This record gives sequence, structure tokens and C-alpha cells, in this order.
Amino acid sequence: MKVSEIGEFGLIDRLAKMIAQAQAKPSASGQQVLIGIGDDTAVWKSTAGIQLATVDTFIQDVHFSLGETSWEDLGWKAMAANLSDIAAMGGVPTYALVSLSLPETTEVDNVMAFNRGMLALASESGVTIVGGNISSAPLVAISITILGNTTGINQYPLTRAAARPGEQIAVTGYIGAAAGGLKLITRQLQADPETTAYLKKAFTHPQPRLKEGQLLVKQGIKAAIDISDGLIQDLGHICEASQVGARLQTARIPVDPTLQARLGEAALELALSGGEDYELIFTGSADKIDKIRQLATCPITAIGEIVAEDKGKVTLLDSNGQVFSPDKTGWDHFAARPS
Amino acid sequence: MKVSEIGEFGLIDRLAKMIAQAQAKPSASGQQVLIGIGDDTAVWKSTAGIQLATVDTFIQDVHFSLGETSWEDLGWKAMAANLSDIAAMGGVPTYALVSLSLPETTEVDNVMAFNRGMLALASESGVTIVGGNISSAPLVAISITILGNTTGINQYPLTRAAARPGEQIAVTGYIGAAAGGLKLITRQLQADPETTAYLKKAFTHPQPRLKEGQLLVKQGIKAAIDISDGLIQDLGHICEASQVGARLQTARIPVDPTLQARLGEAALELALSGGEDYELIFTGSADKIDKIRQLATCPITAIGEIVAEDKGKVTLLDSNGQVFSPDKTGWDHFAARPS
Repeated sequence: MKVSEIGEFGLIDRLAKMIAQAQAKPSASGQQVLIGIGDDTAVWKSTAGIQLATVDTFIQDVHFSLGETSWEDLGWKAMAANLSDIAAMGGVPTYALVSLSLPETTEVDNVMAFNRGMLALASESGVTIVGGNISSAPLVAISITILGNTTGINQYPLTRAAARPGEQIAVTGYIGAAAGGLKLITRQLQADPETTAYLKKAFTHPQPRLKEGQLLVKQGIKAAIDISDGLIQDLGHICEASQVGARLQTARIPVDPTLQARLGEAALELALSGGEDYELIFTGSADKIDKIRQLATCPITAIGEIVAEDKGKVTLLDSNGQVFSPDKTGWDHFAARPS
Repeated sequence: MKVSEIGEFGLIDRLAKMIAQAQAKPSASGQQVLIGIGDDTAVWKSTAGIQLATVDTFIQDVHFSLGETSWEDLGWKAMAANLSDIAAMGGVPTYALVSLSLPETTEVDNVMAFNRGMLALASESGVTIVGGNISSAPLVAISITILGNTTGINQYPLTRAAARPGEQIAVTGYIGAAAGGLKLITRQLQADPETTAYLKKAFTHPQPRLKEGQLLVKQGIKAAIDISDGLIQDLGHICEASQVGARLQTARIPVDPTLQARLGEAALELALSGGEDYELIFTGSADKIDKIRQLATCPITAIGEIVAEDKGKVTLLDSNGQVFSPDKTGWDHFAARPS
């Protein structure tokens, strides 16, 4: 059986089971794990507080193309995608390790530009790059590990597993611009220069929602995830982990206005299934969401509710309350890139 | 200018300078860094003690070949190489994150075998695999991050920069078997079945010297490194970082007896410049080394001394005290694989 037959999540399930079995009698370190394999970020307890660690790898021509993204943007984006996993837990990032695999024909200036992009966001986010390694490879592969902690010594992080029936579902910012940017970059879409620049930047230069994640924790939110694979797919991860269902009112989704202006109704599909916006989805009472809306510096929009039925499933409702079926629901890393 | 023109270490120097400059006004996390870019392992202070973190990436057909190494051995070895960086600091490993990039045509059974190999060594070493990620790639790339701490809350780790003139240089175990194993695997050498099995295992199934590293710390040793790139090259890193010279008495080097039996005098060159033995090189007084020899469960051999002259340089002396020049001194990741 090939990996493609069971997909990324099927493979993670099998690996996680083997690891859980092998680690059934946990070592001293194992006894302190709060969230292990299966989440984007690992969480454990230490005497210094609750610790977070996440790693992501970016492979040339799978996750990025050097013809489409500048080296500086690549550095920024690789750092952003990782920091977003910390943001989704309401965490504070501290240290980063960067493993860079490169063809030996790579221009040194390009590697320095990559480094500059990474450092710009690291500095802005209070992250110190403490180490890593460099090696030769036939293609560019970037693996970034970010360590962090929660905001207080006993502060439990936001998790995927804490959504409860009756809660509202909300998102930060606007959705879909990154997917629009990718369509422009891959020439599946055309637009005027201003629209093009804006949407491309949404794809190449995303801003992880670190401050917003911390605000959610402070306001008592318990469940969140970041939009890396697509709104429906990532909300689906909350539904699976929390054993609840989600009802999304598609008319309330804050589709990026520039994308909407260019694509009209078709923008909704990109907002539902396009990934890499790195906005946060979270759940909580209407009161808490109102309070967060007052305090946040970005839009906060309620887009649906958590229900007890249809566990693990996201149901889309159109403006008439009718069930709505999109063509795509996000992307699996062993499936083709979304188009 | 291409990366190949300045090499791995030249590139690391440039990246480290840019990072140091960008992080000149350190954030809260930056103020606690003890050892940053340039070492195999990053070290910082936290309220829970001194923390260690290391990452290494293994790329198919650069660091391993699937025709040469079984998936289970690959899992073991990737974990071993990383744990060895913690061992070289006398640290205690705690958590691991594993980023696995794979072609979608990979057999699931092979991924499970990889996982089994990794877990076998992780369990033996008290390491909990807490997270990671999986993605599609045209080739296999494995990136492992290991976190750890030193043995006591204020215990400074072993470092490359602490060797002092007058100290003896010593190594754990025997040297050269892994390089012999690689020669057998790549059919540049032949041997009887028993020798073949022994040497191949040295290459595919190395044992990180975690207990020995911790013993060194306990006995007051300050300077150490692991042999990943080759005895001369890795000892050279100690010389550069400590601003000292090293004089190696080549006749005293504990060449692996099986390798010696097969290759005779030619075994010495593999012991000097072949990498991936993952033994430890350390420096200290003759008294301390004697004490460690009594307590260690592996051979401990004094092989030379640290001198004030020839800073950054390793000088080889033959059994007559004459300077000796080997053909190779280890390997740079942007140079060809040693043959």
C-alpha cells in the first residue's frame, strides 16, 4: 500500500498509534506531554511553564516555486507558517531552529535574502534564531522548528479539542486573499496591477496572528486553529478533535473585499477552501466574541455555530439556510495542489 | 557567487553574522542564549535550567541511499545523529519533533519501519516523540529536532570552545568502523561476511554516547564534540572555537580492530577522516581522563594534546614524532561525499 492511498492524515494516524504504543510506559519527559502527535504543535509541561514546539518543512515545487516567490518572501513565509501554529494556540514564540537544504549551485545572495526575510518576521515576533543546520540537496528544503510557551505559567493553550455545542464560530481578518494571490502567481487569474500586488502579497507575505491568539486566551477562548489548509478543512479538524459539528453561514464569511471585487461570487469558494491565509478560527460565546471584536485590531466575524450533531462534519448553509456543497474542502499534502 | 564557492562553513558564517546583527538588540528570549548559530546544538537559559536544541536534516542520495540503508536503520540513524549532538554537550535529551517529507508512492510499510527504527532508539534514550509533520516531496527528506537539558539546573554544557593548552585529547570507543561500513555498502571494499556485517552495522546503527557525555560532565570535562564529519575535522572545530592547536599521535588512535584486521595500515586514514562514528572527542587533564577510563563502559583513549601554538590547526604526528599528512580531513556538506 502506498502513502497516496491513505493520505497525509491516514499516515499520521498510523504513525501516532505506533508511537503511542511504544511510548505507553512514558519516560520522565513523556509523562508531561499534554498534546502530542496529530496536532500542528506539541505541548508539554515543564517547571518553567507550558512549552510549545512546532515544525514545518517547505519543499521546492511542492510548497513553493522559486519562479513564483522571491527568496526574501520565502524566508518570511516559512517563518510565518510556523509562527501561525504557535498563534493558533495563543502562545508566545521564543526560539527558532532552521534547517536549510540547498543545491550547491544556489546563489549566496539568494540565501542571504531568504535569511533577511526570515529575520524580519522573527525580530517583529520576538523570536531568536538560535541554531539549525545547512546541507546540500538536489532541491531547496526548509525546515523550521519554533519553540514557545503559553502566556502564563499554568495557562493551557487554545486547542482543537475544546469546541462545545452552542458556541459561535468566529474568524480573524478576511479570508481567501492568499488563494487569490496563488491563482494570480500561477496565471490562472488576471487582475489590475493594484489588485494583483495586494493579492500576491497576501500569499507571499502573510502575517501570523500572534497578538490575536494571545488576546483569545486572555478573553477565555478555549478552541482555535489557524487556516493553513483552508477554512472548511481546518474547521473540520476542530470538529473531529472536539467531536462536534459545525454549521457555517457562508453569507457571513468575511471574504477578502479585494478578492470579492475581482471575482464576485466565485470568491467564496476560494475563501472556503483556499489555504494559507493564516487567519485564526475560534469558538466561544457570543459575549466573548463581542468583547474580542472590541479589543482586536483586525476584523472579528462570527460565521456560524458549533452543534452536537454531525460530529466531525462542517455543514455549509447559504443565505436561505439551505445546505450548500462546495467543490473542494482544502488540501491534503499527498493530493495535488489546489487549483 | 555560488554556495559551492564558499562551502557549508562559509555560508554558516555569513548567515550567523546577519542573524547576530539583526538580533543585536535581543528580545527577552535572545538575552538568554548561551550558544547560538555555528554550533550543532543551541543552548539557552530558562527558569527550568539550561536548555539544548539541535536539528539535522537527512536528504535522500545526499546523506543516505535507500538502496544502501533499510528504512528501519534510517530511522535509527537519523535519531542517532541528532542524539549525538546532545551527547557531545553532556546533555539529557527529552523531546523530539520529526518532519518527514516523502514521495506519495512510498510504501506505508516502509514509513512504519522507519518509525520503528526511530522509536527503538528514542525509547532507549528516554526521548518522547511529541510532534512533527508529514508532507509530499519528490525525494525522502527527514528533519529531526531534539530538545534536551543539561544534567543539573545550572550545569553548563560541554562545548567546543573550552579546550585549553596542556590538556590531553581523548576519544570514546573505536574509530573508523562506520567509514569502513560505508565503503562496504558502496562496494569500494570487500570483506568476509562477519566483518561485513560488523562494519555495515557500525555505519547503519551507531550508538550515540549519551551516558558517556553525561559522565564527562560529571568528571569536570569542559570541551567535547562528536565525530560526525571525521576525527580531524571535528577536532579542528574544537581548535577553532577554543583558539588552540591540537597534536594527534596517530599511533595512539583507537582504530577499530575489525577495520584494522581487514585494512591494515590503510585503516588509519578512515579513522582520521571518515565520519559518522558518533564517538566523542574531549579534552582534559590526564588525571580526569584516567578517572573517566575507570568509570566508562567503553574504551577511553588519550590520543594527543592541546597546544597554544598553531591555533585552529590539527597536526598529526606519526610513531616517530614526525608530522604526517593525510589525504583527506573530513567532509564539507557542499563537497563530494568522501570515498
